[in-house]
Amino acid sequence: MKIAITGGGGFLARRLAGMLLTDPKVERVVLADVLPIEPFSRDRRIDLRATDVADPKAAAAAVEGADVIYHLAAVVSGQAEVEFDKGMRVNLDATRALLEAARGGGRRPKFVFTSSLAVFGPPFPAAISEWTAARPQSSYGSQKAMGELLVAEYSRRGFIDGRVLRLPTICVRPGKPNAAASSFVSGIIREPLHGEEAVCPVGRDLELWLSSPRTAVANLVHGALLGAEGLGPHPVVNLPGITVTVAEMIAALERVAGAAASARIVFEEVPAVKRIVSSWPARFDISRANALGFGRDPDFESLIRGFLADEGAGKTLTPF
Amino acid sequence: MKIAITGGGGFLARRLAGMLLTDPKVERVVLADVLPIEPFSRDRRIDLRATDVADPKAAAAAVEGADVIYHLAAVVSGQAEVEFDKGMRVNLDATRALLEAARGGGRRPKFVFTSSLAVFGPPFPAAISEWTAARPQSSYGSQKAMGELLVAEYSRRGFIDGRVLRLPTICVRPGKPNAAASSFVSGIIREPLHGEEAVCPVGRDLELWLSSPRTAVANLVHGALLGAEGLGPHPVVNLPGITVTVAEMIAALERVAGAAASARIVFEEVPAVKRIVSSWPARFDISRANALGFGRDPDFESLIRGFLADEGAGKTLTPF
Repeated sequence: MKIAITGGGGFLARRLAGMLLTDPKVERVVLADVLPIEPFSRDRRIDLRATDVADPKAAAAAVEGADVIYHLAAVVSGQAEVEFDKGMRVNLDATRALLEAARGGGRRPKFVFTSSLAVFGPPFPAAISEWTAARPQSSYGSQKAMGELLVAEYSRRGFIDGRVLRLPTICVRPGKPNAAASSFVSGIIREPLHGEEAVCPVGRDLELWLSSPRTAVANLVHGALLGAEGLGPHPVVNLPGITVTVAEMIAALERVAGAAASARIVFEEVPAVKRIVSSWPARFDISRANALGFGRDPDFESLIRGFLADEGAGKTLTPF
Repeated sequence: MKIAITGGGGFLARRLAGMLLTDPKVERVVLADVLPIEPFSRDRRIDLRATDVADPKAAAAAVEGADVIYHLAAVVSGQAEVEFDKGMRVNLDATRALLEAARGGGRRPKFVFTSSLAVFGPPFPAAISEWTAARPQSSYGSQKAMGELLVAEYSRRGFIDGRVLRLPTICVRPGKPNAAASSFVSGIIREPLHGEEAVCPVGRDLELWLSSPRTAVANLVHGALLGAEGLGPHPVVNLPGITVTVAEMIAALERVAGAAASARIVFEEVPAVKRIVSSWPARFDISRANALGFGRDPDFESLIRGFLADEGAGKTLTPF
């Protein structure tokens, strides 16, 4: 089995590749990213490529011969709001270029598109389901919603075997803050664990819909293994998450790492961030995801403990 | 006030232009169509242009200086299903080119996008509302759904003042059958009134969601007059229609034009048409449209009588 992953330099993509490579049936994993990817494994089945998949020829080369395509490349929410045209190019045009490349290959590959809770906008029903209209209130959400329709349509036409997986906000992301409006969601846990101060740009009462990287990666693998027949004519799934407030996150951090950790969080409202993040829903009806066998994190503390287990080694974590 | 209408050769566009020109404040109406438009009025404010608005330069020229842009141009449902790439170009790329042109003009024009009930797909809730997810089961519906998201996003960004009006199936269309899957909906009324045979490619029990051309045109005018504040952050409206079965349509035809007329309808199932038309909903909750002041036809008989009043003169209608 040959696999191609766009946005291959991202941490989810690298984790996904690592999990996929545990399967001996996987012959090759192409990781394509617009920036050169730092080698992260000695596995010879990995093929790292610096290429811009918004260019149709590059898209075709990246997915050539692939049985499974994971399209993870995206301009994140904060950046897409500031750089509208760049967001359109990467989040919409690259998706279309990849779908055209997959169609042109004539192999009807599995095409897993990572979408987002950002396709929804307020006011929200009591619980979001796959029946809820996409009413995005951010450029990122709009571009993802259009990408979803493209994937569903190319799949309906038989050009690909498409799957749209709407990810919750991932927490705890390792590494540095990024241009996502949700960057702080990981930052307010990660930085205090590293003994650093973190700014929380929203209030304590804001509800979030979160998934650990572990669960998200497992669900991305499951999303490709699933039979198309179970997905029906609308191949979209809201992946499971957990609903937590910022206050509950901080309380969990304190339970795991002590009051010294939670004391490193400083509240400074950032209206541009608050506006986008507040336009995302936090309460979902995940009966469809459950029926299809997708997994869920048990609670927020497990997200912190998972981060420590995955990222603790080799990092300068504050002793506690 | 300067107005531009794409798909200007279509009958709805010409009717719309005629109604708009009754307002002396209207200085100019550009009607743009990919095919040359046969002159239909001596009004000097009309500017007919043969141009392909999927080309960005042509799009910019067509909407230059416009205060109101009506984007009606489309590849219809039946054709979009057969010619996928053409549908993508006209229904999606041209919409984007026009939005970019409107954005580039820097005037934040009103932009009225005619969408369709085809953005929805089965299984349906008891009544479709603006909260129902777009789950199209046709290329036309998918392309319209993406266009809707583009218009909403360009509007949210402040590039345009956008309005998305989802039209019911229009009945009774004058003229010849076209490549829309819904072409028969007008054909089974129009052809018998002209003394001709009409083929009905679906069963008598199929429910349809219909609007007269008169009501549709009045609602398109109203859609541009509306203040943006009433539309809220999601400028989409399901326009009012009436729910009727094919059997009820035929009964109304018989009441208006006699049994000789209804006897001219022949039932011959056409699977490709039936599949598309059956994927469209026929029951809507139109409380939003009502609250915004859009109008509705009283019943199906009025659609037939309206057709006779509008189109009867100069046509060879069967005497009855």
